[in-house]
Amino acid sequence: MKRPTILVLGAGYGGLSTVVRLQKQLGSDQADIVLINKNEYHYESTWLHEASAGTLTPEQVRYDISKVIDAQKVTFIQATVEGIDIKEKLVTSSVGTHTYDYLVIALGFEGETFGIPGLDKYALSIANVKAARYIREHMEHQFATWSVEKEKDDSRLTIVVGGAGFTGIEFLGELGNRVPEMCEEFDVPFEKVRILCVEAAPMVLPGFDEELVNYAVSQLESKGIEFSIGTPVVEATPEGVKIKKGEDEFEFIKAGTVVWAAGVRGNRLIEETGIENMRARVKVDKDLRAPGHDDVFIVGDCALMINEEINRPYPPTAQIAMQQGDTCADNIVALLKGEPTTEFVPDLKGSVCSLGSDDAIGVVFGKKLTGKKASFMKKMVDNRALYMIGGVGLTLKKGKFDVL
Amino acid sequence: MKRPTILVLGAGYGGLSTVVRLQKQLGSDQADIVLINKNEYHYESTWLHEASAGTLTPEQVRYDISKVIDAQKVTFIQATVEGIDIKEKLVTSSVGTHTYDYLVIALGFEGETFGIPGLDKYALSIANVKAARYIREHMEHQFATWSVEKEKDDSRLTIVVGGAGFTGIEFLGELGNRVPEMCEEFDVPFEKVRILCVEAAPMVLPGFDEELVNYAVSQLESKGIEFSIGTPVVEATPEGVKIKKGEDEFEFIKAGTVVWAAGVRGNRLIEETGIENMRARVKVDKDLRAPGHDDVFIVGDCALMINEEINRPYPPTAQIAMQQGDTCADNIVALLKGEPTTEFVPDLKGSVCSLGSDDAIGVVFGKKLTGKKASFMKKMVDNRALYMIGGVGLTLKKGKFDVL
Repeated sequence: MKRPTILVLGAGYGGLSTVVRLQKQLGSDQADIVLINKNEYHYESTWLHEASAGTLTPEQVRYDISKVIDAQKVTFIQATVEGIDIKEKLVTSSVGTHTYDYLVIALGFEGETFGIPGLDKYALSIANVKAARYIREHMEHQFATWSVEKEKDDSRLTIVVGGAGFTGIEFLGELGNRVPEMCEEFDVPFEKVRILCVEAAPMVLPGFDEELVNYAVSQLESKGIEFSIGTPVVEATPEGVKIKKGEDEFEFIKAGTVVWAAGVRGNRLIEETGIENMRARVKVDKDLRAPGHDDVFIVGDCALMINEEINRPYPPTAQIAMQQGDTCADNIVALLKGEPTTEFVPDLKGSVCSLGSDDAIGVVFGKKLTGKKASFMKKMVDNRALYMIGGVGLTLKKGKFDVL
Repeated sequence: MKRPTILVLGAGYGGLSTVVRLQKQLGSDQADIVLINKNEYHYESTWLHEASAGTLTPEQVRYDISKVIDAQKVTFIQATVEGIDIKEKLVTSSVGTHTYDYLVIALGFEGETFGIPGLDKYALSIANVKAARYIREHMEHQFATWSVEKEKDDSRLTIVVGGAGFTGIEFLGELGNRVPEMCEEFDVPFEKVRILCVEAAPMVLPGFDEELVNYAVSQLESKGIEFSIGTPVVEATPEGVKIKKGEDEFEFIKAGTVVWAAGVRGNRLIEETGIENMRARVKVDKDLRAPGHDDVFIVGDCALMINEEINRPYPPTAQIAMQQGDTCADNIVALLKGEPTTEFVPDLKGSVCSLGSDDAIGVVFGKKLTGKKASFMKKMVDNRALYMIGGVGLTLKKGKFDVL
């Protein structure tokens, strides 16, 4: 009798959690588990703002997938997924085609530029490890160039961050720490540097407690970061960004570095599957299956679930992705045994937004935190993600213990 | 009675040695010693190949001038020298004008591009700390860009080094260590990288023992470095360099990084003084004074002295510059006392050329050395330069002790 094949696409929080849980619950004779991922490593996508600013190295935010999978039970294929045919039950990748009995789509997010002209081409994006590393190198290159050029172009030292959501604010927090270091390293006077956050919405960190948001903004402002709120970016050019300040009022901000950190969407391959989706996110059934497709699970940033208490979608977080991975694995095991699937219920422990290495804001188990306490909690949250997937060994190796 | 003013231009090996020796020998009531330098720091110009490759940080190759001068005896002015009028005995700088009774010109070297078109603009030069740091950043930026770009331009990973003299070879040695690290850091396959040394002369390291040169070339080749000898660079463009391979045979080498490490000259301000010079170097009298100018001393790379044994100029080295600084200071003290000056006699202890952090070639006290022994000697030479100017404290702080 042929063993069923469970094909998992993507080794982010959702996909890797699914695989780790599956390999714990299934013997090697019960199923073939196949994991396809573009890189040979998993990266902590919630830490990419640190690699982008240069406060963590790329090595610190990634680890080899081989470290956490059981090669006796899981076949790992390093390849880029290129197409998903749910009718034929066939996935195509850069190395060939792959069949499945159960498919887990865990392909993560892509940046969303909302059709704003030039952003695709001229703004940098905190998209993955290589992109993050490029942002760091780009900023350092601008500083180094300013330092040697005869006619100094001060706009090289201007960094525009588009978006005052979670990623934008966490990246700004790291810049607050990193830019003074860069000034030292590259002999750049700090007062020449301009760090500007541009946000279309009339607020910073929508959905966060107002008191905490005010704390965050004032902390970042004290580090020299400017905010321009309620002012959409309408165009990006090689020289900078144009923002809309009023009905017919525009301003061009010349900037050597523009980082776009506003808005994410699901993976565009979703849109080609024929499954109903919104910006490549699928409103999944309660057991995490794609509606009408009993053999397709979707977890992580490509899955959309509504928080019925507030009638809004749950945010795409690592916390939820990992919990979904667990439920997804449990449900596949249930299906293999002919048992009923269970409903996914998020267990929201809270949310912490870092403001550099020693400051943060957050609500944890219903309690508001700021400063060093919140920063400590943030590091515990980060370590927990390592622990959930890789156990104690990986946590000790890659965890954050520079606390207090 | 007015104290005489001794004005020293430049805080490189020659200038700083002069000042340190003067402050030892003179009381604060005997002379006003004034030192003018562009930066607030001295840098080890013989270590710049390491900062350029990224094997040392900029901080490791420089130290604050304030650390080695006695503020009771020496006035330090951070300014760029802009003109030297030896008739009016007046130096102009970016902050004003400066008179003197004795002038010490120790302005160091500048790169020489021999009129080859495009080199000034498109080749990088290991000229100073900022330029060295820029080379490192430029190479890292190329690697990071290659890593993220969709259509990969492999020429970004080609590094052309123009010149197989001392600086070129030492820089190549560091690249031999650093490039594999960069490949790791930026996810670049090592086999995609090309490091090419282009030299117009028919030999590598002219003047060095042939057996040692062969050792050096084969060591560098074993690290993947290619040599193209007897092939002058005839043009540099934004895309790379054109080299002449035969009478009418040319080759264009597309390269993301071109570093020009061939040829140095003295400081161009020398040419405006009216003092006879060759490429801004002055053939000084035996007591280091400019011919016909009893109150002007020239030390370091702007001074030219003939080694009569071989009827060729002594090379512009740190070793000779520091020894000249000592003699220059002694001669100024002699003149203040109405005593005769003494002749400068170089004490050549040898010459060591590094080939990365753990390999080198050299002749020390007449003995040929290669490998780890030579590398150890090179580090002792480097530490000695620190010790001569800054004593034990500075040597312990900035010295190289990663030996064997």
